[in-house]
Amino acid sequence: MDPVRIIEIKKSVFADNDADAAALRRELKDKGVYLLNLMSSPGSGKTTTLIRLISLLKPSVRIAVMEADIDGNVDAVKIREATGVPSIQLHTGGMCHLDAEMTRQGLDNVDLAGADLVVLENVGNLVCPAEFDTGAVRNAMILSVPEGDDKPLKYPLMFSVCDAVLINKMDVLPYFDFDLGKCREYIRLRNPKAQVFPICAKTGEGLDAFARWLLEEIRDWKKQ
Amino acid sequence: MDPVRIIEIKKSVFADNDADAAALRRELKDKGVYLLNLMSSPGSGKTTTLIRLISLLKPSVRIAVMEADIDGNVDAVKIREATGVPSIQLHTGGMCHLDAEMTRQGLDNVDLAGADLVVLENVGNLVCPAEFDTGAVRNAMILSVPEGDDKPLKYPLMFSVCDAVLINKMDVLPYFDFDLGKCREYIRLRNPKAQVFPICAKTGEGLDAFARWLLEEIRDWKKQ
Repeated sequence: MDPVRIIEIKKSVFADNDADAAALRRELKDKGVYLLNLMSSPGSGKTTTLIRLISLLKPSVRIAVMEADIDGNVDAVKIREATGVPSIQLHTGGMCHLDAEMTRQGLDNVDLAGADLVVLENVGNLVCPAEFDTGAVRNAMILSVPEGDDKPLKYPLMFSVCDAVLINKMDVLPYFDFDLGKCREYIRLRNPKAQVFPICAKTGEGLDAFARWLLEEIRDWKKQ
Repeated sequence: MDPVRIIEIKKSVFADNDADAAALRRELKDKGVYLLNLMSSPGSGKTTTLIRLISLLKPSVRIAVMEADIDGNVDAVKIREATGVPSIQLHTGGMCHLDAEMTRQGLDNVDLAGADLVVLENVGNLVCPAEFDTGAVRNAMILSVPEGDDKPLKYPLMFSVCDAVLINKMDVLPYFDFDLGKCREYIRLRNPKAQVFPICAKTGEGLDAFARWLLEEIRDWKKQ
């Protein structure tokens, strides 16, 4: 197997990221590629979730993954070894987020003709990635139980830009003061339309509901 | 009790943050105020740790706290109610970090004549806060067990700028794949001099060792 490719992302020069993101979204639509932007705090379980998700989606769609990180290539290697889907690593060189132009630099290294769905695993951070439209059709995020049910109150923008919130590590709920009802309520405050999916990436529990939601989203988007 | 003060922090205009941070550090030295910059991911337990720490330090030093957050004032209220020490809330208005000038804006609202130690609880983020010297004498960070032992590999800068790493939520170690030995090794890779303190903020376990370290640091710094 070839080594996983590592793409060094350069700083963006575009002044108007929103316009650039809209343009990228149109280009991807023309190519029939659905881009999902997956965000979370460090250590919430993005990669494990993604591996589970891919195994559920693989029979229905062709998938490619872009793993964005400050450093390292562990995640891209893990994804490819566990799922067999094409996976590249994006190095942000210390930058805390990806904008549309940086996402485009990554996509230039993906075989888009062979993909229906590209998942961008954004940099682990609840602040900066929320501020930049990547050109994705949908934003999803993972909040894990140990992080606490109050995070929607403290990181309002992240929760307000996400169409789906996965609540991960439900298996350790008994050991933490995490109130799922309260958390749902706080998420609703930020974004009444957000879909909430309690999951356990380690066992795969709950991920089938999210996979169904995403496949339906992709189907609807194709019809538009 | 008066309501907790909320300070809206303005964007910095200084081009050279390193020089500004060095100047702030000198000013604070002249005033005999030791500034500790506490960083971590969202939900690692910064506020709970701080409450425990303050109760251990209170007999020895006069403490004030600045809680930096994107939004809300929950943490500053919690700290003041639990410990009785002066605590103010800094709102960054969406900004993902504090630099020296922003820290100074906060300090302008602290009674420095009545404090030996000011703790700055930085914005929950493992990326951006590491890039900016706040003018603190020491940087400390909290990594919690559920986040994973590989974080020093993925967020190298944060671990390399921290003099002390607190490993929190040790009580849930049995439920997670977290190897403390490996984690120590990864931290050492980034910063051979970093002190590592396994703790459980919920029970207070292990925090006495960190409190001792910090008091010794303050004593040494006063002699310089």
